[in-house]
Amino acid sequence: MADSALVFPAAEYRGRVAALQAGMEAAGLHALLLTTPPDVFYVTGFLTRFWESPARPWFVLVPAAGDPVAVIPSIGADLMGRGWIADIRSWDAPDPADDGVSLLAETLAALVPERGRVGLPMGLETHLRMPLADYDRVRTRLAPRAFVDATAVVQRVREIKSEAEIGKIRAACAVADRAFARLPGIAAPGRGLDAVFRAFQVALLEEGADWVSYVAGGAGPGGYGDVISPADDRPLATGDVLMIDTGAVRQGYFCDFDRNFAIGPAGDAARRAHGALYAATDAALAALRPGMRACDLHRVMAEALVARGVRPGGGRLGHGLGLSLTEWPSFTPRDTTELRAGMVLTLEPGVAIAPGRIMVHEENIVLREDGAELLSTRAPAELPEIPV
Amino acid sequence: MADSALVFPAAEYRGRVAALQAGMEAAGLHALLLTTPPDVFYVTGFLTRFWESPARPWFVLVPAAGDPVAVIPSIGADLMGRGWIADIRSWDAPDPADDGVSLLAETLAALVPERGRVGLPMGLETHLRMPLADYDRVRTRLAPRAFVDATAVVQRVREIKSEAEIGKIRAACAVADRAFARLPGIAAPGRGLDAVFRAFQVALLEEGADWVSYVAGGAGPGGYGDVISPADDRPLATGDVLMIDTGAVRQGYFCDFDRNFAIGPAGDAARRAHGALYAATDAALAALRPGMRACDLHRVMAEALVARGVRPGGGRLGHGLGLSLTEWPSFTPRDTTELRAGMVLTLEPGVAIAPGRIMVHEENIVLREDGAELLSTRAPAELPEIPV
Repeated sequence: MADSALVFPAAEYRGRVAALQAGMEAAGLHALLLTTPPDVFYVTGFLTRFWESPARPWFVLVPAAGDPVAVIPSIGADLMGRGWIADIRSWDAPDPADDGVSLLAETLAALVPERGRVGLPMGLETHLRMPLADYDRVRTRLAPRAFVDATAVVQRVREIKSEAEIGKIRAACAVADRAFARLPGIAAPGRGLDAVFRAFQVALLEEGADWVSYVAGGAGPGGYGDVISPADDRPLATGDVLMIDTGAVRQGYFCDFDRNFAIGPAGDAARRAHGALYAATDAALAALRPGMRACDLHRVMAEALVARGVRPGGGRLGHGLGLSLTEWPSFTPRDTTELRAGMVLTLEPGVAIAPGRIMVHEENIVLREDGAELLSTRAPAELPEIPV
Repeated sequence: MADSALVFPAAEYRGRVAALQAGMEAAGLHALLLTTPPDVFYVTGFLTRFWESPARPWFVLVPAAGDPVAVIPSIGADLMGRGWIADIRSWDAPDPADDGVSLLAETLAALVPERGRVGLPMGLETHLRMPLADYDRVRTRLAPRAFVDATAVVQRVREIKSEAEIGKIRAACAVADRAFARLPGIAAPGRGLDAVFRAFQVALLEEGADWVSYVAGGAGPGGYGDVISPADDRPLATGDVLMIDTGAVRQGYFCDFDRNFAIGPAGDAARRAHGALYAATDAALAALRPGMRACDLHRVMAEALVARGVRPGGGRLGHGLGLSLTEWPSFTPRDTTELRAGMVLTLEPGVAIAPGRIMVHEENIVLREDGAELLSTRAPAELPEIPV
């Protein structure tokens, strides 16, 4: 075991906590309660795949001043102890009688005055990763302390990536770049989509992914039906358009982009759609500046698609990225989040080609003061063809 | 795209819903609200890796009678529509103004009388996968309807696996069996643990895993420090004990077992520990019968370890398995869940060898009327040695 289990030096985490505490002060919060894998990883550096087990809750408390406190199952105390958090309190979970409730309540009670406020993320794109009945028990024990929404406090800090974080996301993108470059040797007519997905995951691992948290996609004649299905064993056929989308993870950071390939010569409609998606990405890359809102960028991409004579489709046109496969904001007509320098984003225009037939296209970028900087190696302007 | 996206025929899901509805009637529930990947997969057959994105909530409602209703983001309507659920209602998520709240509230209001009860899992090993603020909005809109804990209703049904489910878990175990058999060609002195973990994930995919949701483990001289760490690049050395634990997924079902290997000749303490773990597994396999409680099986294993002169360590000594890496119950002194025929379980005794040095050992079984049936191919009685 290495002496430290941290991806970054402790100073990185201390800076994050200071930024959170500044936001907490502005929001009048005496403590922040965090429970999800990305929030816990962000503050503590605690990186594990053990979150895959839903058996145990994990709590990290950020006080108004001073270092965070980890209130966690004892099975994680060794790994947490190899990070930068000094105050680690643990219990033998899962305990049907008291699964950390008393320990969490006692810890919070000491950090938060009786008329004080505990913040936790309660808004869009969040959830509370602990049993609801236990959350109610903690609230009852801590009354009259108030539990209030702290989504904005967390998001305004987490959404601005440090250069160290941007470097990790760039490295994850490079893994996927290399794996996508091998796809012409992986996808072939007659090969089942399930075999293609397996071989692509192998390529991602061989190219340096620590693990592969997400692969999805589709294939069909001149387009595909959706973008979230697992693979079935239908063999690829000449005339298909194949799309593979991936979230490969390296040192806890994600990439999230896709690539399209024509199996054999590309049909006219698919080529036109790919050209429109490329043009919409061009438009977004040219227009992106700090100070725009998420809905402004949505309009840029949607108008570029319409100008090319195609109909936008496939859902939101991109989103944040970093410690999870998708982060806020969302490029939709309704998201007014301000885009700021340091945000890592995906540009993901989509086109509805025909009923049940779409194409989507995705790149990863970091927003700088003077505009977008690509983190993924850009897809070719022409839909690539896999020779048959 | 295949005509159906279902792993099982519709009759399997109808049987599950009927069993849930019987439990709901006994508990006086007018509807069940489900939000997590395994609960939604269990009722609808909806299988996707898209859950990796925390951006959108998904809702499945089981009424007191009749078929379930899916209230889901429109991006999933195509895939859900290729299953057996006919009533699918969708909205364009994520929507900052109303992210499915109105649609969910309207749907529930029609299913549940004004003085009725909505059940959802709120207990141990559960969480609510939707924003807390939106849950409060739904409750407020539906008042005076009560929202109550339905953990037991869901768990008593889900924990008994059908023969079709047992077959899928057996297939996932066989994938890991074949991958573990290749480990002597993967692990070698001088090779970094990160490279070993990558190569093992490749082996799992090549042997038929659809994806690999979990690999963790450890390596160190005569034992390891914990069982949840990701790999670092420390090279394996002669005298190390290497443990790899995996949750490979095939058709939505998990295996979860580990294997230990000595790098070079095994030390005495490690061989003794492995022998004790094997003996504790023997004791559990011999003792297991329907009607025992989870805590009874814990005692069987703990006493077998003590009888061999070693100290139990490493956390709970096993748990349920199936639609997620870990399910209830937990083999701890405090879990009184009754063990019943049809449960799929892991036997996971652990030994504390020295401070910061443990060994754990895991097998997967299904409990039959007459006792345990192995689903994993049992580990050898002697700690296997990888020649150096």
